[in-house]
Amino acid sequence: MADILAYIKSPIEKELKIFEDRFKDSVKSHVPLLDTIMNYIVKRKGKQMRPLLVLHCAKLFGEINEATYRGAALVELLHTATLVHDDVVDESNMRRGFFSINALWKNKVAVLVGDYLLSKGLLLSLRNKDFKALEILSTAVEQMSEGELLQMEKARKLDISEEVYFEIVTKKTASLLASCCGIGANSTKQSEETLNHVIAMGNAIGIAFQIKDDLFDYGDNKVGKPTGIDIVEKKMTLPLIYALSVADKGERRDKIRIIKKNKKSKSEIKEVIDFVKRNGGLEYAQKRMLEYKSEAEDLLAKIPGSGDTSYILALISYVIERRK
Amino acid sequence: MADILAYIKSPIEKELKIFEDRFKDSVKSHVPLLDTIMNYIVKRKGKQMRPLLVLHCAKLFGEINEATYRGAALVELLHTATLVHDDVVDESNMRRGFFSINALWKNKVAVLVGDYLLSKGLLLSLRNKDFKALEILSTAVEQMSEGELLQMEKARKLDISEEVYFEIVTKKTASLLASCCGIGANSTKQSEETLNHVIAMGNAIGIAFQIKDDLFDYGDNKVGKPTGIDIVEKKMTLPLIYALSVADKGERRDKIRIIKKNKKSKSEIKEVIDFVKRNGGLEYAQKRMLEYKSEAEDLLAKIPGSGDTSYILALISYVIERRK
Repeated sequence: MADILAYIKSPIEKELKIFEDRFKDSVKSHVPLLDTIMNYIVKRKGKQMRPLLVLHCAKLFGEINEATYRGAALVELLHTATLVHDDVVDESNMRRGFFSINALWKNKVAVLVGDYLLSKGLLLSLRNKDFKALEILSTAVEQMSEGELLQMEKARKLDISEEVYFEIVTKKTASLLASCCGIGANSTKQSEETLNHVIAMGNAIGIAFQIKDDLFDYGDNKVGKPTGIDIVEKKMTLPLIYALSVADKGERRDKIRIIKKNKKSKSEIKEVIDFVKRNGGLEYAQKRMLEYKSEAEDLLAKIPGSGDTSYILALISYVIERRK
Repeated sequence: MADILAYIKSPIEKELKIFEDRFKDSVKSHVPLLDTIMNYIVKRKGKQMRPLLVLHCAKLFGEINEATYRGAALVELLHTATLVHDDVVDESNMRRGFFSINALWKNKVAVLVGDYLLSKGLLLSLRNKDFKALEILSTAVEQMSEGELLQMEKARKLDISEEVYFEIVTKKTASLLASCCGIGANSTKQSEETLNHVIAMGNAIGIAFQIKDDLFDYGDNKVGKPTGIDIVEKKMTLPLIYALSVADKGERRDKIRIIKKNKKSKSEIKEVIDFVKRNGGLEYAQKRMLEYKSEAEDLLAKIPGSGDTSYILALISYVIERRK
């Protein structure tokens, strides 16, 4: 896996470094507390899926330029803001059912830091007149918050159909990755039609990415053992939704009863995992994931750009083959 | 007071109604949970300081137009997002030192709803190419989060000098009111110089507004009795900062010791209030407030617009005379 990632990064190593420097510069403030937090955040470097998509989608059409770097920084500022806002409800604190004063302060700081990052991203784009990039990203933000809230609403009743699942995943996860592709292409000044084509590709990549994440819970991960975390947290993911839809009424009722429990024993979690496996939930989710992979590849093949598509092709493979 | 407000609203009643309708339209979503929350939020109508400033600052220069309404909606969306984000740390929950699962869910929803409102405001402006309005507002957002974080950082040590106080107030409170003035004027297409002039006026109004808020705590309010809430919450406001700066070393140390306490008795709170009064904290804060009032009036008098300035003049009086 590290090899695929290294291959994907190989043609844009210099550019990734420039992006990282720009990103660090963009979060500098006059407030010491803020700088301390920012330094901490900047160090938590993940898979860099988003900057990789922005840079490579620019390279499909032309040269990576200043607008590309700003676009990548904009997306990363937003993504970081979302991560920081997500920290507001820390699951472990939630499960224990109480919060310390410190945790509450942390909450308040998290919201403010998130808002600060959003404003930084906004100003960076506005001052450079990257209006189209901002519009693409704002649409993603709208979708992401709608998706999260839809998920929360549906989660309480556990009544998530496959259709609702795909709506949530499209809005919550895929929209941001799609916007990365759009922002990258847009930095080389492409037509609305081309942008929509690239955004559709990003959308398919994003859905495949989320289904892969769902499968991690059932043992398709680095450790090779099911974690069952989604089940503990009552998250209705594709493997489970499918298994419930094909099970008979009695078993369905029985499994939903377990999932609804606030405290589940290890054997109960195992029971649900076995139920999903027995009813073909994993195969079905894999099948759907591969469909979205193909869709992304087809859209990539038909892209009107003249650049080398092999790196994005590798990135699509990485999305469904990664182990974490 | 109700009379002044009615006078201020009188020439723009029709326009305020149009603004309210636009605002309601702008928060419609496809998510039932979100719509329920939005209905609740839309009903909590406050003093409408922000839309009043936007509309009147447009009217100073020309006709209130579609860009003015969008500008007012943009500011109100942001302001509402901040209020919702502020709900994340509910002081009463914080004082009790624990949080229920329900409160935590509320937290999560608050962050998401806040983000959703921000994205709505962004999209409204971007789709209508109100780029200057967005830039004015984003600068305010950056300042507001910096101001909040600066306040949190300083609050822990209670080492807020008058200089730091004014930095926090300028960023935290005044920047948004200043942006209202700028956005209103900008909707009638004014020069950068005029915008800066109007923004400076809004800034002075905002600082006077915050000093007035500080004075409420010491009895200058509807009920006519000191509330002492800022003292309970260890907030260093101008009357207290001044009193501490003129008191002798021993008394200063003694009062800081009381303020630092997590639990304060009624008599301790009264002791601090009396200390502030005895040392001329209220007179000093009033003096500074009136200086900012005069500054705002001077700037208003020198504004190059041709509209009737009497309504904004009334609004400036309202800011320092209101009882809540």
